[in-house]
Amino acid sequence: LNNTIPETDVVKSPIRGIFVPFVIPLDNAGQINEGELRRYLEWLIAHGVHGLYPNGSTGEFTRFTPEERQRVVKISCEVANGRVPVLAGAAEANIRETIRACEIYHDYGARAVAIVSPFYYRLSAPAVYEYYRTIADASPIDVTLYNIPMFATPLDLPTIQRLAEHERIVGIKDSSGDFAFALGLLDTVKRTRPDFSVLAGWEPTLMPLLLMGIDGGTHATAGVAPDLTRQIYDLTMAGEIDAARNLHFQLLRLFDAMLFAGDFPIGFRIGVELRGFNPGPSRQPCVVAPEVK
Amino acid sequence: LNNTIPETDVVKSPIRGIFVPFVIPLDNAGQINEGELRRYLEWLIAHGVHGLYPNGSTGEFTRFTPEERQRVVKISCEVANGRVPVLAGAAEANIRETIRACEIYHDYGARAVAIVSPFYYRLSAPAVYEYYRTIADASPIDVTLYNIPMFATPLDLPTIQRLAEHERIVGIKDSSGDFAFALGLLDTVKRTRPDFSVLAGWEPTLMPLLLMGIDGGTHATAGVAPDLTRQIYDLTMAGEIDAARNLHFQLLRLFDAMLFAGDFPIGFRIGVELRGFNPGPSRQPCVVAPEVK
Amino acid sequence: LNNTIPETDVVKSPIRGIFVPFVIPLDNAGQINEGELRRYLEWLIAHGVHGLYPNGSTGEFTRFTPEERQRVVKISCEVANGRVPVLAGAAEANIRETIRACEIYHDYGARAVAIVSPFYYRLSAPAVYEYYRTIADASPIDVTLYNIPMFATPLDLPTIQRLAEHERIVGIKDSSGDFAFALGLLDTVKRTRPDFSVLAGWEPTLMPLLLMGIDGGTHATAGVAPDLTRQIYDLTMAGEIDAARNLHFQLLRLFDAMLFAGDFPIGFRIGVELRGFNPGPSRQPCVVAPEVK
Amino acid sequence: LNNTIPETDVVKSPIRGIFVPFVIPLDNAGQINEGELRRYLEWLIAHGVHGLYPNGSTGEFTRFTPEERQRVVKISCEVANGRVPVLAGAAEANIRETIRACEIYHDYGARAVAIVSPFYYRLSAPAVYEYYRTIADASPIDVTLYNIPMFATPLDLPTIQRLAEHERIVGIKDSSGDFAFALGLLDTVKRTRPDFSVLAGWEPTLMPLLLMGIDGGTHATAGVAPDLTRQIYDLTMAGEIDAARNLHFQLLRLFDAMLFAGDFPIGFRIGVELRGFNPGPSRQPCVVAPEVK
Repeated sequence: LNNTIPETDVVKSPIRGIFVPFVIPLDNAGQINEGELRRYLEWLIAHGVHGLYPNGSTGEFTRFTPEERQRVVKISCEVANGRVPVLAGAAEANIRETIRACEIYHDYGARAVAIVSPFYYRLSAPAVYEYYRTIADASPIDVTLYNIPMFATPLDLPTIQRLAEHERIVGIKDSSGDFAFALGLLDTVKRTRPDFSVLAGWEPTLMPLLLMGIDGGTHATAGVAPDLTRQIYDLTMAGEIDAARNLHFQLLRLFDAMLFAGDFPIGFRIGVELRGFNPGPSRQPCVVAPEVK
Repeated sequence: LNNTIPETDVVKSPIRGIFVPFVIPLDNAGQINEGELRRYLEWLIAHGVHGLYPNGSTGEFTRFTPEERQRVVKISCEVANGRVPVLAGAAEANIRETIRACEIYHDYGARAVAIVSPFYYRLSAPAVYEYYRTIADASPIDVTLYNIPMFATPLDLPTIQRLAEHERIVGIKDSSGDFAFALGLLDTVKRTRPDFSVLAGWEPTLMPLLLMGIDGGTHATAGVAPDLTRQIYDLTMAGEIDAARNLHFQLLRLFDAMLFAGDFPIGFRIGVELRGFNPGPSRQPCVVAPEVK
Repeated sequence: LNNTIPETDVVKSPIRGIFVPFVIPLDNAGQINEGELRRYLEWLIAHGVHGLYPNGSTGEFTRFTPEERQRVVKISCEVANGRVPVLAGAAEANIRETIRACEIYHDYGARAVAIVSPFYYRLSAPAVYEYYRTIADASPIDVTLYNIPMFATPLDLPTIQRLAEHERIVGIKDSSGDFAFALGLLDTVKRTRPDFSVLAGWEPTLMPLLLMGIDGGTHATAGVAPDLTRQIYDLTMAGEIDAARNLHFQLLRLFDAMLFAGDFPIGFRIGVELRGFNPGPSRQPCVVAPEVK
Repeated sequence: LNNTIPETDVVKSPIRGIFVPFVIPLDNAGQINEGELRRYLEWLIAHGVHGLYPNGSTGEFTRFTPEERQRVVKISCEVANGRVPVLAGAAEANIRETIRACEIYHDYGARAVAIVSPFYYRLSAPAVYEYYRTIADASPIDVTLYNIPMFATPLDLPTIQRLAEHERIVGIKDSSGDFAFALGLLDTVKRTRPDFSVLAGWEPTLMPLLLMGIDGGTHATAGVAPDLTRQIYDLTMAGEIDAARNLHFQLLRLFDAMLFAGDFPIGFRIGVELRGFNPGPSRQPCVVAPEVK
């Protein structure tokens, strides 16, 4: 598989293809298992993912300390080493801390940061706009939005349109699963600014949204079946719809199996284990569903 | 456009393509304007819809009396006259009345009935199963399920799978807009029973779900732009994705304009008026949004 | 128990106390069992309910034909015979039919009608206002609003305030269970118009809302335990809080037992049977929960 | 007002009365304004609150660093100085960090910690149980549960019942606003374990739930109108219902004014300013509603 790009180009490469949000292997003491993490990331790159996405929801970013989140990005950038771009989750407790993370991840060589919409509290649209604008104004690194209404304040279309006018804001990961919303993004934001990257974040929509014009996806399933996800991307982009469709249904069966295995993301940790890695215990009190045990 | 099928085949034709749920023209006294309705249905058939869908949500079926609903189906069957199949909404106050409607619509020559899941009360899955099974056991006409969680008890996948084992139950209209759910239907029910008809009922999903394997759609927008909807269907089925995609985005703009024009389905009544028909007042206290007036 | 009022006063009596929404006994053929219904209503009046509430949600009003709903109100008025007021559910398919029901129920001698907010479709607030205003303008009988967001379009406070300016609109039954909303009603509508009747429709809120200033309640549980409900009302209004509280917790245990017995309102039908009546089968495909069987 | 208890008793005093969750005054650089915070806490105690509740949702605990949250609790304990108990919010990124906070707050002299149910991810009930049990097993300080479904994983009744069997778990703050749920708590958990403290966390339910048997409340409005909240508590507990009711409606008007002033908790910061303190800017990108400006 050819998923590496010339090192000099990585910084400003378009954000396109399959970015993998990944679980963090932990040792028995519950600490980051750096050796296993590096081995796992090498494997993911070798199996075709277009980019790494540390500190995503799959990576249980909220369960780690700020220092640990930095370490995960540092390791990701070192392993990627310019071969694939790194899209680093950078949401911290507040704007000040988030901007500091942007600066650090820029120094590490990440391609861009992904910042989830404010969570716990649900903010108004103007407050969400201010949040992202303030960060983007100060950030030395490109910023992508992250919409995941199940967990965080929903982003609406008019707010995204306004934010997309900011040069530093270059894309969005949409995990809403809302097809009409994604098509709305393509027909407004993407139509006016074609280099604005739209990434799916919900497995069922990957192939159909690629056919409708998105740039790629960030899918937890890619952390377990990177080849499959990559093949769906390649076949769909090549217009081989029948072949892609068959694989897409395979992907969904795998996705459902992991999603319903217990508390998220325990099923994905089990999947990684089945691939020959040692993910160790979760940072969350995840409970495996009785029928899976 | 060639959308008519040989008259002798219409009874058992597969339920496929674009079925149009349509608004009912009313006169100034608020009564069904039969002349205008017939003229409108002729126009819809002439412009390429594959079938008629009387007594859908767009047709405000809950706002009419049982006798009026029968009359609408009768007129539909007379105008169709075997040229296109009629899928008749047959949900009445209770099981007994619904079965009676099935018998009447069978006599009228409808291809099948569509029965919305129980509404007002939200029932358990076993109760929903019993509801449909009892009706299907007694019905002389094929039955299709109608899933519209925004308005009625949601249908879940296991219940649909069990119902699809009933010979008399031949399809489903899914207006949930839930892409994962529709793909689940295709990967389970449709895989085991390929002649089970899966129809989209939410405009944004029409083209992408056709690409994933559904049989067609029932879209209110087809009542205003029948040619456009038909072209999207034909182009998508022919694999002309770029052309289909452009039209699909046009469809969505039209759909949004009508959906957000005021209380549903006032925007669609306005659309029908712009097409040269006289829909008259709604049966509902629909209010037009200030920015539309 | 003294719950009857002088016959000449019933027409304009304030709507206050416990109104009982009741299940309709059916015979084996599924038809209204009039003898049993009359016997049941007599028992309810003898056990202290302040008023009858035919065609409520408990009475499965949507599962009956318009003619059957009329018959239920006629029987209720005949049995009440001026001893207790009748609050008759009058929502029909559309405004015209609803107004006709108002006229008929006025002739029958009902105290007022209760009209549920439009259901199936969810309407905008201005449309809801128009709906009620049009009906109230034409109705010869007092109208009460019925808010049940679980099943029908929610009523909001500003809309209710505007509607409460209409002389013909004299109260509201609120089954939302939203305590803040009910207090808002008391602090705005009821403060400006003290004769506007506010009735609870969710058992857990009966006693606490009586303490905060409402006029009474319409509770399905009163159809099974009319004495208990009446005692809670009397004790609470008399300021005997400790005694009322104990009974209120008893009421909630009974309420939960019936609510979770299966599809609503099967548990309440079972309760009526335990009281010595023969409710017969439900009009709905109600399924009894496995643990209840 | 007499709200202080003998110093020697504070450690094991029952958790009862009005606990105030409070905003954190910040200086122009966005740092904690310790002088103003101490002055504000003194004022709150002087005006009758029964206890302090640092690191609540009103205190924007998620927007501060772990070190800042510790500092807020330390200051609270120093100001309280045994006069009133401190209920310290102790939720950190994961179980390990949370237990560490429990140890530290125990050393500071807090009465108990309050731990919000896991947020961002929504966990299953067994996982929530494991989460609290693991913390309680290791904690040297009493633990109270915090249910706020709007922001965090909902706690259900059976899970709370199981957790209430743990000696270290001594109470719950319920901000759900769900009256039936609160009554369920009283009729099950509180009935079996009368010393289990049930606190309301939603202003509209304070007085009615006190009448039904809860122990007190934690209300942001107490941070702006501590006397009023205290009076409602005292009058209600004394059975002076009419007087309490009038004040309760006043409280709700104040509560609504602050809640709808803009993004939470900006309205409460404005309220604190009107009381003569300098809260400074929020840590959140709060936007004030146009009609408030």
